[in-house]
Amino acid sequence: MKAIVKAEPREGLDLRDVPEPGINPDEVLIAVRRAGICGTDMHIYNWDHWSQSRIRPPLVLGHEFMGEVAEVGHLVDSVKVGDRVSAEGHIVCGHCELCLTGNSHVCRETSIIGVDQDGAFAEYVALPATNIVTIPDAISDEHAAVFDPLGNAFHTVLHTDVSGKAVAIVGCGPIGLFAVGIARAAGARLVIAVEPSPGRLEIARQMGAQATIDPADGTVVEQVLDLTNGYGADVVCEMSGHPDGIRDSFRICRNAGHVRLLGLPRDDVAVNLAGDVIFKGLEVYGVIGRRMYGTWIEMRDFLAAGLVDISPVITHRLPMEDFETGIAAMANGEAAKVVLAVS
Amino acid sequence: MKAIVKAEPREGLDLRDVPEPGINPDEVLIAVRRAGICGTDMHIYNWDHWSQSRIRPPLVLGHEFMGEVAEVGHLVDSVKVGDRVSAEGHIVCGHCELCLTGNSHVCRETSIIGVDQDGAFAEYVALPATNIVTIPDAISDEHAAVFDPLGNAFHTVLHTDVSGKAVAIVGCGPIGLFAVGIARAAGARLVIAVEPSPGRLEIARQMGAQATIDPADGTVVEQVLDLTNGYGADVVCEMSGHPDGIRDSFRICRNAGHVRLLGLPRDDVAVNLAGDVIFKGLEVYGVIGRRMYGTWIEMRDFLAAGLVDISPVITHRLPMEDFETGIAAMANGEAAKVVLAVS
Amino acid sequence: MKAIVKAEPREGLDLRDVPEPGINPDEVLIAVRRAGICGTDMHIYNWDHWSQSRIRPPLVLGHEFMGEVAEVGHLVDSVKVGDRVSAEGHIVCGHCELCLTGNSHVCRETSIIGVDQDGAFAEYVALPATNIVTIPDAISDEHAAVFDPLGNAFHTVLHTDVSGKAVAIVGCGPIGLFAVGIARAAGARLVIAVEPSPGRLEIARQMGAQATIDPADGTVVEQVLDLTNGYGADVVCEMSGHPDGIRDSFRICRNAGHVRLLGLPRDDVAVNLAGDVIFKGLEVYGVIGRRMYGTWIEMRDFLAAGLVDISPVITHRLPMEDFETGIAAMANGEAAKVVLAVS
Amino acid sequence: MKAIVKAEPREGLDLRDVPEPGINPDEVLIAVRRAGICGTDMHIYNWDHWSQSRIRPPLVLGHEFMGEVAEVGHLVDSVKVGDRVSAEGHIVCGHCELCLTGNSHVCRETSIIGVDQDGAFAEYVALPATNIVTIPDAISDEHAAVFDPLGNAFHTVLHTDVSGKAVAIVGCGPIGLFAVGIARAAGARLVIAVEPSPGRLEIARQMGAQATIDPADGTVVEQVLDLTNGYGADVVCEMSGHPDGIRDSFRICRNAGHVRLLGLPRDDVAVNLAGDVIFKGLEVYGVIGRRMYGTWIEMRDFLAAGLVDISPVITHRLPMEDFETGIAAMANGEAAKVVLAVS
Repeated sequence: MKAIVKAEPREGLDLRDVPEPGINPDEVLIAVRRAGICGTDMHIYNWDHWSQSRIRPPLVLGHEFMGEVAEVGHLVDSVKVGDRVSAEGHIVCGHCELCLTGNSHVCRETSIIGVDQDGAFAEYVALPATNIVTIPDAISDEHAAVFDPLGNAFHTVLHTDVSGKAVAIVGCGPIGLFAVGIARAAGARLVIAVEPSPGRLEIARQMGAQATIDPADGTVVEQVLDLTNGYGADVVCEMSGHPDGIRDSFRICRNAGHVRLLGLPRDDVAVNLAGDVIFKGLEVYGVIGRRMYGTWIEMRDFLAAGLVDISPVITHRLPMEDFETGIAAMANGEAAKVVLAVS
Repeated sequence: MKAIVKAEPREGLDLRDVPEPGINPDEVLIAVRRAGICGTDMHIYNWDHWSQSRIRPPLVLGHEFMGEVAEVGHLVDSVKVGDRVSAEGHIVCGHCELCLTGNSHVCRETSIIGVDQDGAFAEYVALPATNIVTIPDAISDEHAAVFDPLGNAFHTVLHTDVSGKAVAIVGCGPIGLFAVGIARAAGARLVIAVEPSPGRLEIARQMGAQATIDPADGTVVEQVLDLTNGYGADVVCEMSGHPDGIRDSFRICRNAGHVRLLGLPRDDVAVNLAGDVIFKGLEVYGVIGRRMYGTWIEMRDFLAAGLVDISPVITHRLPMEDFETGIAAMANGEAAKVVLAVS
Repeated sequence: MKAIVKAEPREGLDLRDVPEPGINPDEVLIAVRRAGICGTDMHIYNWDHWSQSRIRPPLVLGHEFMGEVAEVGHLVDSVKVGDRVSAEGHIVCGHCELCLTGNSHVCRETSIIGVDQDGAFAEYVALPATNIVTIPDAISDEHAAVFDPLGNAFHTVLHTDVSGKAVAIVGCGPIGLFAVGIARAAGARLVIAVEPSPGRLEIARQMGAQATIDPADGTVVEQVLDLTNGYGADVVCEMSGHPDGIRDSFRICRNAGHVRLLGLPRDDVAVNLAGDVIFKGLEVYGVIGRRMYGTWIEMRDFLAAGLVDISPVITHRLPMEDFETGIAAMANGEAAKVVLAVS
Repeated sequence: MKAIVKAEPREGLDLRDVPEPGINPDEVLIAVRRAGICGTDMHIYNWDHWSQSRIRPPLVLGHEFMGEVAEVGHLVDSVKVGDRVSAEGHIVCGHCELCLTGNSHVCRETSIIGVDQDGAFAEYVALPATNIVTIPDAISDEHAAVFDPLGNAFHTVLHTDVSGKAVAIVGCGPIGLFAVGIARAAGARLVIAVEPSPGRLEIARQMGAQATIDPADGTVVEQVLDLTNGYGADVVCEMSGHPDGIRDSFRICRNAGHVRLLGLPRDDVAVNLAGDVIFKGLEVYGVIGRRMYGTWIEMRDFLAAGLVDISPVITHRLPMEDFETGIAAMANGEAAKVVLAVS
């Protein structure tokens, strides 16, 4: 089958023919139809420091996708051949204390498809049946293909209730843009998008942001306080990973408010913990992955009910063969989310 | 009346005669019997950078205390003359959105007795009736006198349930030592005390710590993992304020665990947010003051029921006139909590 | 001043001249502008069994209202003369354990205006300053006048998060109708209204209900299961007080779902606790009053932001003098909410 | 192998030879060592109305047990031959929305061993690997054998935090007696046991109850109010299933308190919902089974740490062959928990 592969330990990716994966009795084989390109894929393409330490070529990339069930193992009764599905790409042990208490998203034995084992930029991908999520007809292939990053946004925004709240989204990459729409759909009274790129702020407005702030002018804190009667935002979702974005996130949050950190800073970040976290009585939550599988059901229900439309975030649709075009559009900031048509 | 006063903007404190405070119709006058010396009082004694920016002499110090109601304003019906009482020393506005939603502990209009207005190192102190808490007979004067820092410990430890959990207390000053006892009383299965001072570790053991770790040997993380089957502590209470203590707190916490930050670092702290907070899915809570007044009722109930005995933490008892002795004992690390007899 | 008064222990109400109330130093005098008629007022009008046991004539009725601050006691700094305000009509002790832990709504010393002491169907009403809530310009007089029952609805619907959930509202009196709109505004994916009156179901649709069910046909359970993929509603708000409505509420709730009981049944209700509550693992919450004052801030923020429009629920607007017309319209089921213009 | 079997649709049970069960690739075969007799087993013995509607003979009974892993399917890597284990007896579908969101305990496709399929009163029992829980050395065989009912008690008591709280346990069968000890271990300040049997109240005192009440004298409410300063118990665990026990549970609970219903009433129960639930603002939770698998880990950690000793509840130990003796001791009220030695 054809696949996008990290074939050698160096920059770049290749479209290659590789063998189709087989499945175990408790696994499912999926014929991939659509797949999204993630920032992680960019890191691997660029063969950066993190990639060199984590990736063992040859590896089929890709962890955001949807497709159709092509084959099921004989112990599988939760899905059947022909089902339209997406899947959680984090394969967990299932029996550690974290998995047994609803915290599979931080299982220490996690293997991620497209990172630690072969992924979904391919005609077929194999996964445990427990990881498969069926997709209702009301949700398009394209939207189902990005359930992985969309789930990051749902996990972040809905960690605690935002209904009636003032919510700030710091950093408007694809996940931040999704988050804007989710916060509005969940009844936030005010969604503030903080992002330097005018193009992304424009998409943030399309997704429902009532206020947009360019952090470059150095008045993020003042502007958020002005918008919130001097209190600050009730909930802040940090999705930039930038040290200044992180520090701003603590500062623009109201006392006793909630900051959720999703964006990954490259290095240690110096934070004024006394003044910006402790004296303010903040609650801070580190967000990784998606709740298994509460986030998936929530996301499915929001989209199937039409509560949020993520279309504005998908800026590029390309055949799998043109993946280099997609990566280039992401690298130059022109693209928000790029979706590849695999078959 | 006699009082311990910051009379001039310089190092030191004086025992002086000052006028008795008057009360408003909604206030209460308390004849002080016992008062605890806090680290904050040390800062003010030393006239450090923070004190110079915050304190406006002349000022009567003291915010940890108990006494007897001497007079009540005519609108007060919640307490009466002769009641044994302690009091919340944070005087809040009562009508901002934070106060109206159970978050008075982070009211932005807070005035603290002994810091922003005259305090309790005096024969009499005046406070709003809303701040007064009556003390059952089962609780001694001495224990009631330290309800302020004890409340910090209750607020921290019981922010979420610790029953059956492994709890690490990082930093064993008086609040850390209280925290050890509270965690045991609340049913923690394992309490680990992390502290360099052998004397304080000895008190930690008296308070119920089953394991003690000196962070100086650089193996805090390994030791905590060994004690917790490789997972880390479920709940970590950071009470040192030391940058290394804070960083260790994140590292010794299990994935999806809870870190509560109470100790105040002097400067910004560089934290590995990606590796130690986000990838681990941690919940972090900044602790300031006491919940008004859930913490006070909780603390009263624990002590009145004999669930925790805080006696080992009170190492020094002195007449008010000997306050310099108490401050010296705290400065040289010999004392945990010093209680002054005012009358 | 003129007021609607229960003058004698018998059926009916009278418009009378009564003395203006005076205020204490911590109280506020409000010039009433608009007031809503509540079902409770109907009970008192009819002088039913409950009224005879609770009401001590002469009494000025009315507990839903808004107006303008006319005078403030000298200890009051939270509002000033001229402020547009509504008010919590439950006057609580403020110092019992319930009040001190955020549970004032169930304070056992509660005195309710218009029930236990003179109320707001009058040109002036006096209340403690703590009970006063200021109203932003974005909220009309008429809407502010019904913050009391609207708060019941907010308290019920938002007890736990409904974003993305299927919510059933059983009973569409004014509070049920408000609840429909609130659930939609808070991001419910599906709101099902259960109510026999076609007129009220029509208002429920205007408020956003996507499905309406007449319980008279005996297929409530089947219909709700059909609408929810066989699981049942995630959240059920019981607002009828009818024994069948209550029993249906448990039955139409999904396993591990939430039932909130607001409607007051006249007598004991026989419930299949084993089959409908225990085996289903339900969470049930008894709703009384409004959270003080979280509910008030939430309600203010939702309305000021335009998240929900309650206009369809206010079916009748009358001058105070025509209160009998309003009561008649409520008695014959023609009216949802009736608002009186007092001045 | 030998097994205790419901061979025919009539009263009684038989010790018989039956074939050993086989296992699927994802299942585990356990050599049973100890098994507890449950009230459910009594119902099936007596062939009561419920049993006749649910049980399909022939059936091996028993769902409380522990043993040693004898064989594992080839897909199983979570346990190995020789491990000491207990097991969750509710076998769930694993892929419905309830299972996927941490609510497996109310999965609608649940099959219970010893009820819906062959159980553990036998030399061997087969279960899915996901249901197996390993037992640390610190926990005895006998205690591990009753993890099923013990888990009911943990699920009930620890549904929300009881540290520092006044907890009432209504009904002191084995699960109620376990609950007494768990509440004390979790830091309850006061545990009140309500139960008519003097023998069971004596065990309740051994388990740590500080107050015991015989409901027969009709003063349960007065006594609980006296013990709780007039407020009522913070948390009430209803474990009798008796209509009066259930009604008392609501009445002895403080306003805004928590009632958990575990005991199963045979018929509908008439409850004063207005006065005893709604006006009081109660939270009520229906408890069924054990959280999968949070309850199991909690229970394991409490017992392994020695926080609670359940020995006083196990009153009878018998060889499997003498099961009739155990059933008789339960029937006449002489026994609390009976444990059978299977091998």
